[in-house]
Amino acid sequence: MRNIKLTLQYDGTAYHGWQTQLNAPTVQETLEGAIEQITKAKPKLFGSSRTDAGVHAKGFVCNFKSETNIPIEKLPIALNTCLPDDIVCVSAEDVDLGFNSRFSAHKKCYTYYISNSKFPNPFMRNYSWHFPYKLDIEKMKIATSAFIGEHDFIGFAASGFTVKTTVREIYSLDVEKQEDNMIKITVVGNGFLYNMVRIIAGTLAFVGTGKIDPLDMPEIIKSKDRKRAGITAPAQGLYLTEVYY
Amino acid sequence: MRNIKLTLQYDGTAYHGWQTQLNAPTVQETLEGAIEQITKAKPKLFGSSRTDAGVHAKGFVCNFKSETNIPIEKLPIALNTCLPDDIVCVSAEDVDLGFNSRFSAHKKCYTYYISNSKFPNPFMRNYSWHFPYKLDIEKMKIATSAFIGEHDFIGFAASGFTVKTTVREIYSLDVEKQEDNMIKITVVGNGFLYNMVRIIAGTLAFVGTGKIDPLDMPEIIKSKDRKRAGITAPAQGLYLTEVYY
Repeated sequence: MRNIKLTLQYDGTAYHGWQTQLNAPTVQETLEGAIEQITKAKPKLFGSSRTDAGVHAKGFVCNFKSETNIPIEKLPIALNTCLPDDIVCVSAEDVDLGFNSRFSAHKKCYTYYISNSKFPNPFMRNYSWHFPYKLDIEKMKIATSAFIGEHDFIGFAASGFTVKTTVREIYSLDVEKQEDNMIKITVVGNGFLYNMVRIIAGTLAFVGTGKIDPLDMPEIIKSKDRKRAGITAPAQGLYLTEVYY
Repeated sequence: MRNIKLTLQYDGTAYHGWQTQLNAPTVQETLEGAIEQITKAKPKLFGSSRTDAGVHAKGFVCNFKSETNIPIEKLPIALNTCLPDDIVCVSAEDVDLGFNSRFSAHKKCYTYYISNSKFPNPFMRNYSWHFPYKLDIEKMKIATSAFIGEHDFIGFAASGFTVKTTVREIYSLDVEKQEDNMIKITVVGNGFLYNMVRIIAGTLAFVGTGKIDPLDMPEIIKSKDRKRAGITAPAQGLYLTEVYY
C-alpha cells in the first residue's frame, strides 16, 4: 500500500470549493475522477483545507492510499491529462503511511489580493476583490502587528463551524503594494478559523479607508466581537498558497 | 457634434476579436450596444486595431461621433454599468473631429506572455502561451536587436491581408523574465502586419530552444521568407498594451 501526497494549483472560479457536495462540482470530486481513471480504483482523498466556492489554490495538498504501480514522477503528467485545465497537479510524492494532509500540517500560508483601482481590472475580476476606495497602505501595515502571536480569534470567525478551540497563532501578516494598484496580503499561521483570512482582509480594508483606527486593533481582537471587525472579503481574492509539513 | 475617444481594457477570451462579424460575439458590437444604451443612438465605432479572437487589450483605443450631452467624466462609469465584466472602459476624452483612432495612431505597444514552466499555470491558461521546454533568455535577448529599425517584415506576416507596404519600423523589443517562470516580450513599433507580434514571439521561442541561432536573425529577416521564421504563437498570450497619438 502506498500513501501518495499531491500538490495542486487550481483556479477555483468554476468550483464550489474543495470538498465534495451534492449537485455542485468540486475540486475533490474532479480530482477523484482523474485518480480513478489512472489507478483504476476510487480513492479516498484527504485534503489539507476546505476551501470555499471561488477560492483558489497555488499549493493545495491532499493525499490518498493506493495500490497503483505508476512511477511517482509520472503521476502529475498522467493526472493532468485527465484533469480540466483549471486544476493542475504540480507534484506527487510517496509519503509515510501515517501522513495525513490535514492533520500533519503545522503551518499554512494564504494570500489575499485587493485590486485598489478606480475601475475594475478585467483580468483580475475572478482573482481579486475590486475595492475602488483609496486605501492607506501605511495604516494597514500598522494594524498588522496586532495579529501576530497567539490570540483567540473567535471575533474573526464566521459562525457555523465547530472547532475545539478558537485560539490560533499567526506567525506573519504582510501588506504589500504591487503593480497595477494591486494590494497583496500574505498571512502565515498554524491554522485558521472559518473565513478568518477573508475577515482579516476585510478588516485591513476598513483600516485602509480610515473606518477602523489601526491602534484600536489589539482591543478589537481582545473584544472577541465579530461586529467590531470588518466585513468578510469576497472569496475570489483568496488563495491557499502553501501548506507546511 | 462630438468626437469621443475611449480607452478600453478587455479580456478577449470570450470574443472573436474586436471587429464585428456575423454569428460571433465581438468586443466592437458589445461596446456599440453599451454606447447605444447610454446615448440612445447606434454609434459608428472606429477601433485602433483589429485584434484576433482570444487576444487581450490593456489599452485599446476607439472613437465615435455623437450628439450626446453626457459629461465626459461620467461616460466610463455609465458604459461600465452596461458592459459585461470582461470589458472595462478606463477613460473617455473629447477629441478633435479629425481624430481617428486607427489613422491618427503613430506608435503601438504590444506585450506577449510565455509561461515557461514544466506544468501549465491554471491562472494564466487564457492569458499566456504555455511553453514547457527550457528557454535561454540570453539568446532571446541577443536576437531582439536584429528587429530594431525599419525592415520589410513580409517574412513575419500571415497571408490573407492586404496592405500598401510591408515595411514597418520597430522602436524597441524587450524580453524579460518575471515571477512564476513568466517571460514577458514587449514590442513597440509604428505599426504591425497581420500576426506579426505572434510570429516574432514564436520566433524568439525557437531562438530560446536553440532551433534558431540568434546570430542568423538579421539574415532571416532579410530573406523575407515566412518559412525561416518561427511558428505563430497562440493568440491568448497577446495584449495590445498601448496606442500612442
